[in-house]
Order: sequence, then C-alpha cells, then structure tokens
Amino acid sequence: MGTWFTEKQTENFGITAKINRTLESKKTDFQQLEMLETAEWGNMLVLDDMVMTTQKDEFVYHEMVAHVPLFTHPNPKNVLVVGGGDGGVIREVLKHPQVEKATLVEIDGDVIEYSKQYLPEIAGKLENPRVDVQVDDGFMHIAKSENEYDVIMVDSTEPVGPAVNLFSKGFYEGIAKALKEDGIFVAQTDNPWFKADLIQQVVSDVRETFPITKVYTANIPTYPSGLWTFTMGSKKYDPLKVSEDRFHELETKYYTPELHHAAFALPKFVKDLTK
Amino acid sequence: MGTWFTEKQTENFGITAKINRTLESKKTDFQQLEMLETAEWGNMLVLDDMVMTTQKDEFVYHEMVAHVPLFTHPNPKNVLVVGGGDGGVIREVLKHPQVEKATLVEIDGDVIEYSKQYLPEIAGKLENPRVDVQVDDGFMHIAKSENEYDVIMVDSTEPVGPAVNLFSKGFYEGIAKALKEDGIFVAQTDNPWFKADLIQQVVSDVRETFPITKVYTANIPTYPSGLWTFTMGSKKYDPLKVSEDRFHELETKYYTPELHHAAFALPKFVKDLTK
Repeated sequence: MGTWFTEKQTENFGITAKINRTLESKKTDFQQLEMLETAEWGNMLVLDDMVMTTQKDEFVYHEMVAHVPLFTHPNPKNVLVVGGGDGGVIREVLKHPQVEKATLVEIDGDVIEYSKQYLPEIAGKLENPRVDVQVDDGFMHIAKSENEYDVIMVDSTEPVGPAVNLFSKGFYEGIAKALKEDGIFVAQTDNPWFKADLIQQVVSDVRETFPITKVYTANIPTYPSGLWTFTMGSKKYDPLKVSEDRFHELETKYYTPELHHAAFALPKFVKDLTK
Repeated sequence: MGTWFTEKQTENFGITAKINRTLESKKTDFQQLEMLETAEWGNMLVLDDMVMTTQKDEFVYHEMVAHVPLFTHPNPKNVLVVGGGDGGVIREVLKHPQVEKATLVEIDGDVIEYSKQYLPEIAGKLENPRVDVQVDDGFMHIAKSENEYDVIMVDSTEPVGPAVNLFSKGFYEGIAKALKEDGIFVAQTDNPWFKADLIQQVVSDVRETFPITKVYTANIPTYPSGLWTFTMGSKKYDPLKVSEDRFHELETKYYTPELHHAAFALPKFVKDLTK
C-alpha cells in the first residue's frame, strides 16, 4: 500500500494521495510546511495539513487568479501579490507585457525558499528583474500603501493561522486604499460546498467597499470540492465588459477569453450566496 | 476515527468519506453494490467501489445531464434514459412539461430497488405515469429502436463492467438510428484529468456520427477530479443557439440558462482534447 497523505477537507471527508517520499517537513515561523513527492500530482506543497499547490494542477489556480483581473484592467502596470510565496501567480503576471513591476509580499520566507528548490517551474520567475520579493506581513504592507497599485491579488491560505486577517472587512478597505482610482483586486475565497458562509461574508464585505463585486470559479482537483471561488472587487472596470481586442495571445493551459466570461456564470446554489 | 470509505480514483489518488453505517452491501447480477450512510454526503450509492451518487451533490449531475439537451431540443416529447437506475435523471426530465413519455432502461434492477428505498428524493419519480421503467440491457434496447426518441441520455457507470459497450462507436451509431431525424443525445464521459484518452476517443467517435458534437462540463465534488464532462451529439440543434425565450422557469440548484452556455466554454486543456 505504501505511504499516503490524507487531507481532511472537512471533519468527514478528504482526499488521499500516494507519497513517493517526503522531501521536507518543517515547522516554519508561521506554519507547518511539508513538501511531498506524490505519485499522482508531482511535488505537492502542504501548509498546516492543507494542499497549497501541486505541479500537475497548479496552472488552474495561478492562471485564474492572474489573468482575469489583468485582462479586465486596460493597463496594469503596477501589480501586488499578497501571499503566493510559491511564485505561481507571479509567473502568470509576468506574461502580461504591460506589467512593469510585480511585488510579492509573502510572510513566510520558507515557502519561497522551498518552492524555489522543489517547484522550480512554478517559482522560477521570482528572480525576474520586474519582480520585487518582500518577506513581510501582507496585511501591514497593505495598511501602509496608498493609491499605488493597479491590480492586487490575494493568494492566501485559508482563514486560519497566518491568513486570518486577510479575510476581514478592514483588509478589503485597506486594499481599496492601496489601489489606484481604477484599481482591481482578486482574492481566493474557498469553495461553496463546505464554506458557503465564508463566501457570503466576503462578498457582502467586498460589496460594501467596491462598486463592482463579482465571483468567478475554477476547477482545482486537489482543493476541497474541486470547485474554487475567486472574489473580485473593482473600482471601475467590469470583468464582463472587456472588449474582445484586448485579449492578446497568452500561453495557458486553463484560461481562455471564452472561459474568462464563462467563469462568472455561477451554479445556481453559488449565485444564491452572492445575492 | 471510525469507518471510512475510500475510492481510489486512480492508482495513486482518491477520496475518503466517513461512514455512519453500511445500509446495504450486495453482489447483484451485474456488480457489487453498496449503499452507505456517510457523514458528509448523506446516503451514497457505490457500484464496484465507485461513487455513483450522493444525496448532497446528486443534483449537479442529474440537472446537467437532463436540462442541457432538453432545452436544446425545441419539443422533446419522447425521452430515453439508458442506465440511471437511481432515477435522478428521470426526476429532472419530468420537470419539462413537453415530455410525454420518459423510458428508463436500467440493466440492474437492484440499483432501482435500493435507490427507491434509500434515495427516495432521487428515485421518487420512477412511479410517475409518464415514466416507463424497463429492467433491460440498454445496448440491446438501442439496437432494436429506430426513429423513436427525441432525446437520449446515457447515464452509465464507467467503461468497465456492465457499461463497457456504452462507450463504443457502434453504440453511438445505434443511438443515431434510435433518434428521430432531429434528435439529440448526451452521455457522461468522465473527467479530463485522469481520462483524457477516453474523452478524445468518444468525441472522435461521436463526431463521425453526429453533425453537431459538443462537450460541456460540471463540477461534481464526489467524482474523480471534481470536473465532469458530458458529450452531446445532435443531428440538427446547436446547444449554443437556443433562443432565450425557450428557457422556461425550472426549479434547479445548479443549472441556469446562463450556465447552459457557460458550461460549453472548456478549459484550454480540455478544449484541446476535443480538436
């Protein structure tokens, strides 16, 4: 049978993956970190017993966090990624030639270091000259930023442990302040099957701060329920009113301009959470 | 810890669900059947160690198999469901008032009986006067039908065991013959993460038989990868050209007219399988 890693996604349900070997297991300053070589998903980053990313399915999350807001904004020059120490969102951000600077603020330097070592095709763009990597508290970084960013992506862990502040109304207000007058932000906001209450709360909070609030989804097999939501708050631009000529060619495995629109068509029970 | 049911969706990956109790465990004439009371998903029907349906997430599959073709066809009077002994597709089919007759051909009578007993809100419409339940071989039923049905749905198990014939080119040719001149069929065609080859083969086979061949997806948390595909073969009607006024009100939890269209916008790596 061998060794298996099991994530209990709820008290009563989980996923289980065969492990070839454990590459790292470390208590960092902020969380328990495991880097596992799995037989199905390639190398897998696990934080506090939750799958963060795997080599095989990481493209879905990273493409959908990055490209939806970056195509919605007509000229995203200055981009901030909060969290995302594996570097996957940064890699996708850099595919947009208009982006002049991409700042990554990750609280846990070990996530960055181990990702560089074991997830090179994900973290490989962190040394790019357009990228500024800061090992720092994203909440504090947002609090001291004003009228600075065109697009902010919140690529956090779940709202337990180090990321708990990143799901608060005060944080969304800080993001609004940190964005320019036509800025956009996107946050990963968990799944509607097990975390319906969270999504309702986030959408309600974001809506009080941003004139345009929209939820979209993507299929991520190693995340709870496989159906992931992203919540966008936008000051000016509607993600569903992007002119077709703005979708420049991009090498992707999940995102397409057609899917950009379709991802906002929510299943009825998810749509009901956003009312 | 208690008792857990684990489905190995691949050799190296699976889902695991806590079991309150095993309601039935039986070797039927065709397969191993378990009816489990789970803590997360309610009652769960398992055939040959594969999750078929659960009380909590069954609506996704059943709504998406039924409503996409039934809204694509302008006047579906005579409908056939191959497989689907749990009755969930039939329940959704009956929501369409134009349907005069819905025939269910399920090879394994035990699936029907245990579903009636333990999944009453799924199987509860099987006694409806518009429904004709036949315990019979779906492949043979198709072979002897000609110019008879407006819509055929293939709600089969995976292409192992009793359903192996239901994924063959000969079967799709039989379906084309069994359909009227403007008929439509839909089959569940597994997931693109672990069964890419199957999807490519099915799409290629269906395309040789039907002028309009389209793939759409839905999120089903208890199915492998959570991303499920359905392949539609249509003789005349394009599912993406349904006039808006045809979408009559329907009580659903997943399907919406907006999602009807969006479900055909495939992730890039899935779209590539259908080329």
